[in-house]
Amino acid sequence: MTRLSVVNLVRLGSRTASPLYRNPARALHTSVCMNSSHRKAGFKPEKVAVVTKTTRYEFEQQRYRYAGLTEEDLKHLLAMKGSSYSGLLERHKIHTNNVEHIVKSLRREGIDVRVVKRGEYDDEVVRWADAIISAGGDGTMLLVASKVLSKDKPVVGVNTDPERSEGHLCLPVRYTRAFPEALAKLFRGEFRWLWRQRIRLYLEGTGINPTPMDLHEQQLSLEQHSQAHRITITDSQRSNGTGILHESNSKPSLLPVRSLNEIFIGESLSSSTHRGISVHHRVKLKSFKQHVNLLLHRASYYEISVDDGPWEKQKSSGLSICTGTGSRAWSYNINKLAEQSVEEILKIGKSKTGFDIPLNREFVEKVTEEYIESLVFSPDDRHMFYSIREPIVNRVFSSSRQRGFASKVCVRSRCWDACMVVDGGTSFEFNDGAIATISMIEEDQLRTVVLEN
Amino acid sequence: MTRLSVVNLVRLGSRTASPLYRNPARALHTSVCMNSSHRKAGFKPEKVAVVTKTTRYEFEQQRYRYAGLTEEDLKHLLAMKGSSYSGLLERHKIHTNNVEHIVKSLRREGIDVRVVKRGEYDDEVVRWADAIISAGGDGTMLLVASKVLSKDKPVVGVNTDPERSEGHLCLPVRYTRAFPEALAKLFRGEFRWLWRQRIRLYLEGTGINPTPMDLHEQQLSLEQHSQAHRITITDSQRSNGTGILHESNSKPSLLPVRSLNEIFIGESLSSSTHRGISVHHRVKLKSFKQHVNLLLHRASYYEISVDDGPWEKQKSSGLSICTGTGSRAWSYNINKLAEQSVEEILKIGKSKTGFDIPLNREFVEKVTEEYIESLVFSPDDRHMFYSIREPIVNRVFSSSRQRGFASKVCVRSRCWDACMVVDGGTSFEFNDGAIATISMIEEDQLRTVVLEN
Repeated sequence: MTRLSVVNLVRLGSRTASPLYRNPARALHTSVCMNSSHRKAGFKPEKVAVVTKTTRYEFEQQRYRYAGLTEEDLKHLLAMKGSSYSGLLERHKIHTNNVEHIVKSLRREGIDVRVVKRGEYDDEVVRWADAIISAGGDGTMLLVASKVLSKDKPVVGVNTDPERSEGHLCLPVRYTRAFPEALAKLFRGEFRWLWRQRIRLYLEGTGINPTPMDLHEQQLSLEQHSQAHRITITDSQRSNGTGILHESNSKPSLLPVRSLNEIFIGESLSSSTHRGISVHHRVKLKSFKQHVNLLLHRASYYEISVDDGPWEKQKSSGLSICTGTGSRAWSYNINKLAEQSVEEILKIGKSKTGFDIPLNREFVEKVTEEYIESLVFSPDDRHMFYSIREPIVNRVFSSSRQRGFASKVCVRSRCWDACMVVDGGTSFEFNDGAIATISMIEEDQLRTVVLEN
Repeated sequence: MTRLSVVNLVRLGSRTASPLYRNPARALHTSVCMNSSHRKAGFKPEKVAVVTKTTRYEFEQQRYRYAGLTEEDLKHLLAMKGSSYSGLLERHKIHTNNVEHIVKSLRREGIDVRVVKRGEYDDEVVRWADAIISAGGDGTMLLVASKVLSKDKPVVGVNTDPERSEGHLCLPVRYTRAFPEALAKLFRGEFRWLWRQRIRLYLEGTGINPTPMDLHEQQLSLEQHSQAHRITITDSQRSNGTGILHESNSKPSLLPVRSLNEIFIGESLSSSTHRGISVHHRVKLKSFKQHVNLLLHRASYYEISVDDGPWEKQKSSGLSICTGTGSRAWSYNINKLAEQSVEEILKIGKSKTGFDIPLNREFVEKVTEEYIESLVFSPDDRHMFYSIREPIVNRVFSSSRQRGFASKVCVRSRCWDACMVVDGGTSFEFNDGAIATISMIEEDQLRTVVLEN
């Protein structure tokens, strides 16, 4: 198949072309590696959705407009808090200018563009588009990815505020103001597809779930608990004496999400109407609202089995299971060590060996760097990396390994009020008795772009 | 002063005796160290309050009684969740038996005892008692301590469920079933006072505080935000055009708490009515409630100054400032390292030195142990230990030291929805612009007992 015909196939729109396109593209990609006389197929979508973030300026504006304040009031309010109105406005302008640049560049190439705000982005937009551009930062990319469940729909991230946003999931920052260059490379095939592996979740055993509180030892008074907790018992159940015994959800159900970064499992910090009430109180001025929280630092209890291994009871601050993409995100922060800690370990180690090991700053930096690098892996690796955050080891609980790779992780909740959080943005209840099965399959990949330099 | 007269002074009740008692006891204690012919004054309180925890069994009972279930239903419900009714009942009985044992032992000595449930414990009980016994675990001790602001009122912890509770703050477990032995030692002076240093908090700059959300990049739709946020503007402010400019709380105010373990500062995970609503929904059966949370993993932004040093901007998962007592609690879990991590560092270090260092399991264990031991310090040390949890280091944020000792720590919040959490149980709003000054003074100590073995 010649390059021209592949390009034509693509221009028909990905729905028609994709089954055929996917294989040839990959075949071509592979053959580029083997034989440089074959050129990689270019990619020129006909319809592109550009999903934009909401800037803080827009948010503040909306919020205070709602509250009836003027723009002047907004300025003063922000100044009083030590924030800068002009700073917010500037960042907002940078973002909107960059979005405009992207949109113009696309339209100049005859591409049909829809600009969609975060709140308007939905399945219909995903179906319409041949490709989706995320115009914002990593958070916007996560949002965009969350509605793309197919591995065929390309998603490209552009970092619209490089000074404020890390943009790990976005194109290199130089393309932000030089987007036509990025487009040219796409059209010419000077890029490669990066199929980022994602995580899927099955959940079972969530039948009756009355959100009880953790009684561990910090407890609310019973009166407060009573108000906060209810279980739903139908009248028919009450009257026919069957009680509440039947399990409703006993088969594992596949959750309608795919995680691009990580799944995090842990006790959440609130869940009661009590806390809801205290929010209203907090808005009042001139008083310290000493609102009693439900053990903000609450340990998570669960059982874990890695790659169908033996179940192990654990107690910790939570459990992270990440992808290669996510190994640079929250998991990275959980696991990395500061030079200060590395230095202390090396010092103690040195003192116990009797060797005269030179422990200068450079040495410590190098060891730290190598340690940290071992925490990240490739986004297209079909492995997951699990980490136990702040494990609590005592007479009852132990952990054999604090972290490692896995193809499959099963977790059984023994928590009172926990969640499974997907990519830091969506959460599912995960309470006592529920079992999550966490794995990766090829079909769940997200198709993204890496531009060749 | 002879021993007898000191004991008589004490028996008058601590209110009368304490100014005089305190100094002689300490003087005597000091002189015991110097000259063993002086005996330490015994301690025999006339009135003792015993504050008891609520067991999980009691809690479940109350909750389901409220919901109209029978004891049989309770059994089945718990069984279905994989929990054990008989297990809960057994733990409950162990606790109540231990409480009875304590109370009987006290009364047998002619001491006036009031048994007070957690929910009934208040300032009046504290004033009434010459000494307070916490009958539960560490959580109950924290509760008991939280209402004792004076350094004169002795607090003693007894671990009523040694198999389930660590009881770091309690007497050694063997006294749980042999409480008369503990009492005998107290009467004979075979103990020492341990004045545990506690932390005090000043807060300022909390004027206007409309609990905004973090827009960082993961954002709710504006509609959801609008409902969740309100600021309070009085009508007179609106009409007289002064807007909302005046700072209400500009002088630092001393908060009415003393921290026995630690202060933890960080972004909280929810604060909106939205989440409050989702709680009600979560009680329904048979559906996955995909409730959108507000960035459960949200970085905390703040500025920190240690011992009046230069201000440093930081971004992390939160900041812990602990006492010597607390150095064995949450701070310990934040900072400790697993053998797996220590081993990896030593391996990398070894590979870079070229030395032939034997890295066997025993060596790794020893290094890990020494590292971990460096994290704890004495409860009567008038120092605080600050730790930055999961620091995020990038172009903008840096941290010179991840942890260290301090006499004073100032933190300025740049957070959107953060709290200062005291001993994992009480929290204060700590949002953008607020400044906390964190320190220790002698007057805030908690008087506890260490029995000599």
